[in-house]
Amino acid sequence: MRIAELSETTGVPAPTIKYYIREGLVAPGQPTGRNQAKYTEEHVRRLKLVRALVEYGGLSLAAIRDLIAQVDNPDLQAFDLLGAAQRTVTQQKDPRPGPYKDSAERRLHDLLTKRGWRIKTGDPAYHTAVGVLAALDEIGRQDMLDALDDYAEAAERIAEIDVSLVGDVSDRERAVEIVVIGTSVGDTLIAMLRRLAQATVGERLYT
Amino acid sequence: MRIAELSETTGVPAPTIKYYIREGLVAPGQPTGRNQAKYTEEHVRRLKLVRALVEYGGLSLAAIRDLIAQVDNPDLQAFDLLGAAQRTVTQQKDPRPGPYKDSAERRLHDLLTKRGWRIKTGDPAYHTAVGVLAALDEIGRQDMLDALDDYAEAAERIAEIDVSLVGDVSDRERAVEIVVIGTSVGDTLIAMLRRLAQATVGERLYT
Repeated sequence: MRIAELSETTGVPAPTIKYYIREGLVAPGQPTGRNQAKYTEEHVRRLKLVRALVEYGGLSLAAIRDLIAQVDNPDLQAFDLLGAAQRTVTQQKDPRPGPYKDSAERRLHDLLTKRGWRIKTGDPAYHTAVGVLAALDEIGRQDMLDALDDYAEAAERIAEIDVSLVGDVSDRERAVEIVVIGTSVGDTLIAMLRRLAQATVGERLYT
Repeated sequence: MRIAELSETTGVPAPTIKYYIREGLVAPGQPTGRNQAKYTEEHVRRLKLVRALVEYGGLSLAAIRDLIAQVDNPDLQAFDLLGAAQRTVTQQKDPRPGPYKDSAERRLHDLLTKRGWRIKTGDPAYHTAVGVLAALDEIGRQDMLDALDDYAEAAERIAEIDVSLVGDVSDRERAVEIVVIGTSVGDTLIAMLRRLAQATVGERLYT
């Protein structure tokens, strides 16, 4: 297909496609004449992924280039690729060193052990989780810390739904797109469903 | 107690306390002499709430003043106060009008009916949820929409934990603080637990 059709199929304007090609995010088309090139289904998939990363992952060009390189790295197993995609859309907030952090790390370690969750060294979600637990401890929300395992159980249920949606991982672009959109848009979806549910659950209790 | 002790107890610097008093967020102390005033446990509770709203709710002074007015309004029932607190920390993102929005509204309406969730007119979580569902439809994530009820079930479980933590609502400052921190910090906690769980659930499936 020509660039006009590629643009129409993906919803990405032609000048933006050319920009992505110059930036190395998308491979150039096969030249078919002066100022003309032919594009394939592979370009469609790649462009959809780049658009999803820009619009829903909130990622910088550098971060997108990094992730795309991993999509294209045949030595990287699908599971590790999905982990890399998920970590790319996870904001790392480091906890302040101190007794609250130490205690939060022990608490999270106990949770991981209890639930059989294995984590990768340097996982941003681990560091951010430690920071959240330390903050809750510091502001006296022991009640939320006591409920940690209950929250983790609900989170595991969500993760099971998430993972079931990824399905076949042989189409690496599609699988990465599912993880990036599912993780970032999914956070907002879950946060809103939580609020909508709170209103009714609270009403049962307090009126 | 004097302002130095109030500052020490709450962790809020004395000049910041004076600023909150000038802005009407905290009542002035009872004068005990020139440039001296006496503060009570009520001041401690109020200051802790204001600090939580600033630090964890990410709220503007105007939004905090609004919410504080509702804490102080004896005609507002506890349940409605908690709803107001929750809505204050919920970002509303309006969906673009169009067929995706219409379809998202129908989908959310069906979900609310099925689960028996009642919502308040103008709830920002409702509008943001419609926007998320419309976006997922538009980018072809029918699979996530099909899993909506499963996500909602997990969200309801989270809401049950949330509401159980509020407990006694007769201390209105404390109840509002629990809702604001629980909602905002809780979103991050759940998002991180979800990621930590994904890694292990995915590993079971894909390696």
